[in-house]
Amino acid sequence: MKSHRQELWFEVPQRRGFVNITPQVEQAGRDSGVGEGLCLVNAMHITASVFVNDDEQGLLGDYERWLEALAPHAPIAQYRHNDTGEDNADAHLKRQIMGREVTVAVTGGKLDLGPWEQVFYGEFDGRRRKRALIKIIGH
Amino acid sequence: MKSHRQELWFEVPQRRGFVNITPQVEQAGRDSGVGEGLCLVNAMHITASVFVNDDEQGLLGDYERWLEALAPHAPIAQYRHNDTGEDNADAHLKRQIMGREVTVAVTGGKLDLGPWEQVFYGEFDGRRRKRALIKIIGH
Amino acid sequence: MKSHRQELWFEVPQRRGFVNITPQVEQAGRDSGVGEGLCLVNAMHITASVFVNDDEQGLLGDYERWLEALAPHAPIAQYRHNDTGEDNADAHLKRQIMGREVTVAVTGGKLDLGPWEQVFYGEFDGRRRKRALIKIIGH
Repeated sequence: MKSHRQELWFEVPQRRGFVNITPQVEQAGRDSGVGEGLCLVNAMHITASVFVNDDEQGLLGDYERWLEALAPHAPIAQYRHNDTGEDNADAHLKRQIMGREVTVAVTGGKLDLGPWEQVFYGEFDGRRRKRALIKIIGH
Repeated sequence: MKSHRQELWFEVPQRRGFVNITPQVEQAGRDSGVGEGLCLVNAMHITASVFVNDDEQGLLGDYERWLEALAPHAPIAQYRHNDTGEDNADAHLKRQIMGREVTVAVTGGKLDLGPWEQVFYGEFDGRRRKRALIKIIGH
Repeated sequence: MKSHRQELWFEVPQRRGFVNITPQVEQAGRDSGVGEGLCLVNAMHITASVFVNDDEQGLLGDYERWLEALAPHAPIAQYRHNDTGEDNADAHLKRQIMGREVTVAVTGGKLDLGPWEQVFYGEFDGRRRKRALIKIIGH
């Protein structure tokens, strides 16, 4: 049995943004030496997501507008979390819709993704260094 | 250590629908020969979900109406993704609420599900052949 | 290869509530003897969630109000699931937003969590005994 651990670091310059991390996750899969197994990719921060969807700019903009409608950033005083001095309560909500993590199968030494599946880091409270974790186990 | 991979194919005749795939996932668990492990089940398409909930027709209808309220299909021009010629932007949104995947424990050679837990394939852009992936690892 | 299974039981006295289960999951990780692996934690009931977020009381109240706005409990007659005699259709919806499960990496014999990541059991139809499952595999 083999295991592999790797961190990916981000500093998204805006409050919100989506980063396609599929190449880095594929590289981690190769580095792991795992032929058959599972690859967990999760945000290590609670105002960010890792999710799988389409790398199409129109859709990523749709996500941005839709999440803002479901969990608006402003007025920040609508959230009790922001009474602590934070202004990111909406980011904690948005991340629950998009999810913390994905688990991807590893088959024949490669990520076992469907034809359009791309792995994204979703940032909802950026402008600082944050990270995601890749953990692969298998044989 | 053992691993097992299997695809499930679907062609849901309507745009949206829910298919209980628990029997097929249970069969894959038996076919794997895994006694103790983890079973990942994920949609391989980005307009579909795999999720666990109740096989009760009233509830499945409630999901349909609720998702349509949170991410309406029409008017299709409200989504920039549909500028590409697609009409399925809402399906990409609905799938994020319901999720891409579930991981189910395997214990004593069986899926370790609670009494009411059923595994579903959720289709949000059907009328064509699509698939889900089952990957089981363990010993 | 090693595996470990454990159940956590809850009886949340109100209809809805959040319980920080990080200490119990950490203890299960130690009990497993797994150094490198994956730890699945999932609700075994379909009206409850396991999720990772911040243990901050203001935020937990924000989740409560936000989920109630997205999937209101009352009027219960708005949901066809409640025609069965249940009054918990909203709990099945809320649980989909917060998620069924999390998978946490195990590294060096410890849960590999980011600095603010805490594991929660989210109850949406409480006042009875319910449980979550911990399953750890690795080496």
